[in-house]
Amino acid sequence: MNTRRLPDIAFLQRLAAAAAAETLPLFRNPALVENKDSEGFDPVTAADKQAETAIRSLIEHEFPEHGIVGEEHGTIRSEHPLVWIIDPIDGTRAFISGLPVWGTLVGLKIDGLARIGFMSQPYTGELFVADGDRSLLLRDGATPVTLATRKNHTVSDATLFTTTPALFSGATRDAYDRLEEKVRLARYGCDCYAFAMLAAGFADIVIEAGLKTYDIAALIPLVEQAGGVVTTWDGGNAVDGGDVVAAATPQLHAAALDILNR
Amino acid sequence: MNTRRLPDIAFLQRLAAAAAAETLPLFRNPALVENKDSEGFDPVTAADKQAETAIRSLIEHEFPEHGIVGEEHGTIRSEHPLVWIIDPIDGTRAFISGLPVWGTLVGLKIDGLARIGFMSQPYTGELFVADGDRSLLLRDGATPVTLATRKNHTVSDATLFTTTPALFSGATRDAYDRLEEKVRLARYGCDCYAFAMLAAGFADIVIEAGLKTYDIAALIPLVEQAGGVVTTWDGGNAVDGGDVVAAATPQLHAAALDILNR
Repeated sequence: MNTRRLPDIAFLQRLAAAAAAETLPLFRNPALVENKDSEGFDPVTAADKQAETAIRSLIEHEFPEHGIVGEEHGTIRSEHPLVWIIDPIDGTRAFISGLPVWGTLVGLKIDGLARIGFMSQPYTGELFVADGDRSLLLRDGATPVTLATRKNHTVSDATLFTTTPALFSGATRDAYDRLEEKVRLARYGCDCYAFAMLAAGFADIVIEAGLKTYDIAALIPLVEQAGGVVTTWDGGNAVDGGDVVAAATPQLHAAALDILNR
Repeated sequence: MNTRRLPDIAFLQRLAAAAAAETLPLFRNPALVENKDSEGFDPVTAADKQAETAIRSLIEHEFPEHGIVGEEHGTIRSEHPLVWIIDPIDGTRAFISGLPVWGTLVGLKIDGLARIGFMSQPYTGELFVADGDRSLLLRDGATPVTLATRKNHTVSDATLFTTTPALFSGATRDAYDRLEEKVRLARYGCDCYAFAMLAAGFADIVIEAGLKTYDIAALIPLVEQAGGVVTTWDGGNAVDGGDVVAAATPQLHAAALDILNR
């Protein structure tokens, strides 16, 4: 059995469509919000769980030997060299706030590297997908667009995205503030959509802290195959999450790391 | 001549479509960004100017006696009891960052009160419109939805939106921080889209500072005719802009004002 058989874009589109069938009817449906954590506020919807179930079921059918890590339903066969990593709704706060900047994230890790992945935003009809080679935006009824990051090497010209500065505390906050001070424009609140905009050439740097593997694995190939760089703040492989820096070019990435680690 | 002839929803849809014909081809087109202010960073696109021209031209044709105030092309006949107030692209930073949370805003002020207006987001195909009576979401190919704010009276249960806490400084920042501390969830970065989500029942409070009349006039009827309240921080008419508080219910609005002005 050839366990290195890889998914094509058509299969990734099937995953996205299966997830959308669960998420879209519940988007902007306030009745279905529940709290994952009764102590704090970590919203998760019925859509989240059902979408992951739908994605896992297609993967289990097509690639039964592969590992799967999902935000909602846990890990199986993670020792396999090919592991799918799923966040059915990244940006649940955007989801429950009615904002179309959440996404369904599915990545495929091969021998420890994030190589294939997508971010799907079904309300806008967008599928940002990296097939191992290129990053593309596929949109219902539109011509596919090959994504390329902006060729911006200068921090002072950069648009920076982060979910919220409240992610950062202590020395990490100081480091973040040093970088934010130097960029041209800082924007907050987009989660995965920020990485998609980086891949598409409309943002230059994305900074996050405390990510889980399912928050980032799908987005690494999307940024890298559009020409960008994604690492942890210490320059390592970001596939397992942690504090993450993504940038439009290797030069800009090096400059951002330098400011963060000064 | 009956100068009190009012626009119907079909006319507002024509305005939105005329603006979309100018904005949409330029959205995510990085070549067309220019800087309004060479000192700082106040992005404005060719789309902005062309969309306002298209809107003004339809108004001039249909309601030649009415006043018009536009962000890009200035003021005429502002002494007339009916004045149109136009922001062709509210959220230019979202626009140039590729995010579909900007909008075209058109409001109609009647005897000093914002009574009719819309926010159009053409990439998502959404038209949030207040016709003087009701607020509706019209979306290409979907059934019209009557908008109603969430019946939430409690600050501690509230989702708060603001463009960025960096809007606020000094005592205003302290006041904002007091409110943010008390809410359940704070989200940044949505400009007009936040008010649309308030009208639609997915946000509870929107706080802004230093708004211009064209940032808010279209949004007041949208929130009010969905059941919410919009005023300045001192409880006055917000149609001319300034520091603005919008809330889902009169009770929640009073509670937010109380915390801000403590």
